[in-house]
Amino acid sequence: MRILFIGDVVGSPGRKMVSEYLPKLKSKYKPAVTIVNGENAAGGKGITEKIYQGFLKAGANLVTLGNHTWDNREIFEFIEGAKHMIRPANFPSSNPGKGIAYLPFEGKELAVINLQGRTFLPPIDCPFNKVDDLVEEAKKRTPFIFVDFHAEATSEKQAIGWYLDGRVTGVVGTHTHVQTNDYRILPEGTAYITDVGMTGPYDGILGVDREAVLKRFTTALPVRFEVTEGRAQLNGVLIDVDMKTGKAKKIQPLMINEDHPFFD
Amino acid sequence: MRILFIGDVVGSPGRKMVSEYLPKLKSKYKPAVTIVNGENAAGGKGITEKIYQGFLKAGANLVTLGNHTWDNREIFEFIEGAKHMIRPANFPSSNPGKGIAYLPFEGKELAVINLQGRTFLPPIDCPFNKVDDLVEEAKKRTPFIFVDFHAEATSEKQAIGWYLDGRVTGVVGTHTHVQTNDYRILPEGTAYITDVGMTGPYDGILGVDREAVLKRFTTALPVRFEVTEGRAQLNGVLIDVDMKTGKAKKIQPLMINEDHPFFD
Amino acid sequence: MRILFIGDVVGSPGRKMVSEYLPKLKSKYKPAVTIVNGENAAGGKGITEKIYQGFLKAGANLVTLGNHTWDNREIFEFIEGAKHMIRPANFPSSNPGKGIAYLPFEGKELAVINLQGRTFLPPIDCPFNKVDDLVEEAKKRTPFIFVDFHAEATSEKQAIGWYLDGRVTGVVGTHTHVQTNDYRILPEGTAYITDVGMTGPYDGILGVDREAVLKRFTTALPVRFEVTEGRAQLNGVLIDVDMKTGKAKKIQPLMINEDHPFFD
Amino acid sequence: MRILFIGDVVGSPGRKMVSEYLPKLKSKYKPAVTIVNGENAAGGKGITEKIYQGFLKAGANLVTLGNHTWDNREIFEFIEGAKHMIRPANFPSSNPGKGIAYLPFEGKELAVINLQGRTFLPPIDCPFNKVDDLVEEAKKRTPFIFVDFHAEATSEKQAIGWYLDGRVTGVVGTHTHVQTNDYRILPEGTAYITDVGMTGPYDGILGVDREAVLKRFTTALPVRFEVTEGRAQLNGVLIDVDMKTGKAKKIQPLMINEDHPFFD
Ligand SMILES: [Fe+2]
Ligand SMILES: [Fe+2]
Ligand SMILES: [Fe+2]
Ligand SMILES: [Fe+2]
Ligand SMILES: [Fe+2]
Ligand SMILES: [Fe+2]
Ligand SMILES: [Fe+2]
Ligand SMILES: [Fe+2]
Repeated sequence: MRILFIGDVVGSPGRKMVSEYLPKLKSKYKPAVTIVNGENAAGGKGITEKIYQGFLKAGANLVTLGNHTWDNREIFEFIEGAKHMIRPANFPSSNPGKGIAYLPFEGKELAVINLQGRTFLPPIDCPFNKVDDLVEEAKKRTPFIFVDFHAEATSEKQAIGWYLDGRVTGVVGTHTHVQTNDYRILPEGTAYITDVGMTGPYDGILGVDREAVLKRFTTALPVRFEVTEGRAQLNGVLIDVDMKTGKAKKIQPLMINEDHPFFD
Repeated sequence: MRILFIGDVVGSPGRKMVSEYLPKLKSKYKPAVTIVNGENAAGGKGITEKIYQGFLKAGANLVTLGNHTWDNREIFEFIEGAKHMIRPANFPSSNPGKGIAYLPFEGKELAVINLQGRTFLPPIDCPFNKVDDLVEEAKKRTPFIFVDFHAEATSEKQAIGWYLDGRVTGVVGTHTHVQTNDYRILPEGTAYITDVGMTGPYDGILGVDREAVLKRFTTALPVRFEVTEGRAQLNGVLIDVDMKTGKAKKIQPLMINEDHPFFD
Repeated sequence: MRILFIGDVVGSPGRKMVSEYLPKLKSKYKPAVTIVNGENAAGGKGITEKIYQGFLKAGANLVTLGNHTWDNREIFEFIEGAKHMIRPANFPSSNPGKGIAYLPFEGKELAVINLQGRTFLPPIDCPFNKVDDLVEEAKKRTPFIFVDFHAEATSEKQAIGWYLDGRVTGVVGTHTHVQTNDYRILPEGTAYITDVGMTGPYDGILGVDREAVLKRFTTALPVRFEVTEGRAQLNGVLIDVDMKTGKAKKIQPLMINEDHPFFD
Repeated sequence: MRILFIGDVVGSPGRKMVSEYLPKLKSKYKPAVTIVNGENAAGGKGITEKIYQGFLKAGANLVTLGNHTWDNREIFEFIEGAKHMIRPANFPSSNPGKGIAYLPFEGKELAVINLQGRTFLPPIDCPFNKVDDLVEEAKKRTPFIFVDFHAEATSEKQAIGWYLDGRVTGVVGTHTHVQTNDYRILPEGTAYITDVGMTGPYDGILGVDREAVLKRFTTALPVRFEVTEGRAQLNGVLIDVDMKTGKAKKIQPLMINEDHPFFD
């Protein structure tokens, strides 16, 4: 059984990459389950219902989110009805939406948990506590558990990977928008990568217009961050799972851009 | 002409990897210049004179540093005499040591600049301003300029890469201790990678004992961070440089660990 | 009924002020209950059992703490047995100690809650959620409830004051070590002050040696923070409470130093 | 000679307090120079030209700013021509506007310097370095120097106070919107207060609508911060200066609200 995960989709360049390559990736790799992080899908900040539906049409089974979850106000109108979308589970408990979903595949279920880190990010509930509860809940239904940990600090991300090693199928990091090269199977069988990277502009700064970001760093003046036009990229990861144990057998990063073209 | 750069060396496991593999890497890849980031070389925090000398003996031409520069007090006793060591150039100007060095190779010079970011790190002088001054200074002597940008945020690191594109030979990031997979030659000829990764324990959290880090995240209690024992890794990067223009022709990450064994 | 609260006691200069003036203050103002924040009592960081016992001997009925709770390791040996000491209630639930205490007075009880903020401080559990639970618990026993909110940001402190207005007798802020001038009775009857200030050196920077702090700010080099010697001060607050309703009738700051001498 | 300083004016409630009370305060206290911090004057964020002119008409001689300087875009259109307005001097040097002004009084000049802190605020140039340069510059013209240090952390504010003790007439803190009770003349003759407090809504949280701020803290959801309506307050400080030495003789806080009514 194989999981395909696509990292933070940024704006229309990212959405176009998903429309174009997700079908090809599914055709080539035949994942049982496809998950897309969509926290930056609407102009870099948040997601709309139309974009969410577009991801499902393009072949995603689930959309995960992150710190930009609430940045497009439309979210409040459709999140409760969006069965195939989750937001970080350790947001305050009164927040709309939910942080865990169960995806059917081959007569079984994959539990998917979305969590957010707290280092260099706003204070929310403890992700370690929360994931303990959710893993315990999920374990009652299935040995197949996948975690999208949306966090900034490499320390917090590696920590949650080791914390969950042997308890879940895979832990992938999102949020930094840069794919890391440390993908591995941890000793107890959990697939891990610190960050999957992002899907969007190839020549921006994390997907954002370079001029604006550089102006911000060099002048400290307020700027308007817009998604960069031009060449795009897709970053993702594939995880192969043992059907008997739910443990990961293999993890493989995906990168599509002009320097790394896609081959069918 | 080729530059070999080794990412943050952490404690004795990291130093052993340098002793063992640096000669082999030099023999295999024949770099004109070898640079090692040593900010975590002494028990994870700072560096001693003996360790510094050890890096030179192992084949390094220069040691760079970062936010842990001053964490081993011995630094204050030998930094002024350490001709082959630099610390971030944008530390306050009264700080001992310097932030730029010129390394001779094949009758020419490579200027090496060490800088530190400010996002999620303590306030210091502006790295963008500082690097403008230093690049201008270096340009008077040589077209070969290399930058170790020690920073946390992927945004600030990509920003400095694009900021310097076409003005320097290469910009490599350090500090997060996780190698990124976004190495590339930027359009104007600057080699770039967000983070080279670290050289030290393979099974710790950024090189630190897992139990301690997990205790910290789950309890918020004070813990003593010790360098993990056990299997080790080496992370680095190779940059090939055009001798006429000083521009980068190729950038290649290096990773040595049990999952990625070294071949002569 | 009257509550006397003494702000963060810093090191031996602070402890001497408590020894000298707490008896005099009790004699002059005759509080029913006396509370001392002791998070900096042991050399500026944490508290020891001997110091804790000293506060009780000097006349305190309860010691509250803050972000420095665990900084003197002796705490782990005596906190579970220290009936008259509480630490922030919203620390992770596995932490030793407790965050609420009930102090008898005139045949009734004062519930005292210690909480810590999260803005500019390490991530812990939500203080707003936690205080809801604790106030509900306390209300079952008594209408007299007092909160020491240990926090950095004025926004978070004013927020908790207004959040609890009408539900508790008083909310006093601690941690910034500077007494604020905004003491008042909020419209629904809760006494409030953003920060009580600290009890310790009068000529340091928050109680710490000026040279070290200035070196830190001007050089960014590591320094050892020591409690300043010399003149000392005491900062506190008095709250008068309606015995029937548990609401506050009056709040009055206290300040003793050479510029504001104590009069019997 | 006397200086009157009014703390951060927030929105229309703050501006009304200035219009109503500044003439009365000038009439009662007869300051030689009047300074108003206007960083929150336009709806809580920034300032417009009309508001700036309004402050001058109401009797201010100079407007200082802070971290919200650039938040109303109109600033970029009038700051260069606004002779009686300064912004933090340690903003990046390419920023428009300036950070020092010289105000004539009684045949002499008061140099006024605006600075911003870096602890818990965005990275900018070092305020300690910058103020050294500006004080040296100002000393060539006048012994009368006043500093508005716009900063969050009490440590950084006390540090700059002690750093400048004996070199300037007065240092007042702004930004936290809460008046502190630690006004004093430091040993070498500099008047000091950690924060002057703010001029605006009396029943908001730092001037902002309580519901919004509480929603933010309890849910972490995005909210729109609006200036609160209703009762207002004015916070300020008076400093009396020795005409011969430029040293401060007296510092006195001002607070006007329903609990502290103004008397002519
Ligand atoms: Fe993202
Ligand atoms: Fe994110
Ligand atoms: Fe490091
Ligand atoms: Fe570092
Ligand atoms: Fe304290
Ligand atoms: Fe504290
Ligand atoms: Fe401000
Ligand atoms: Fe303000």
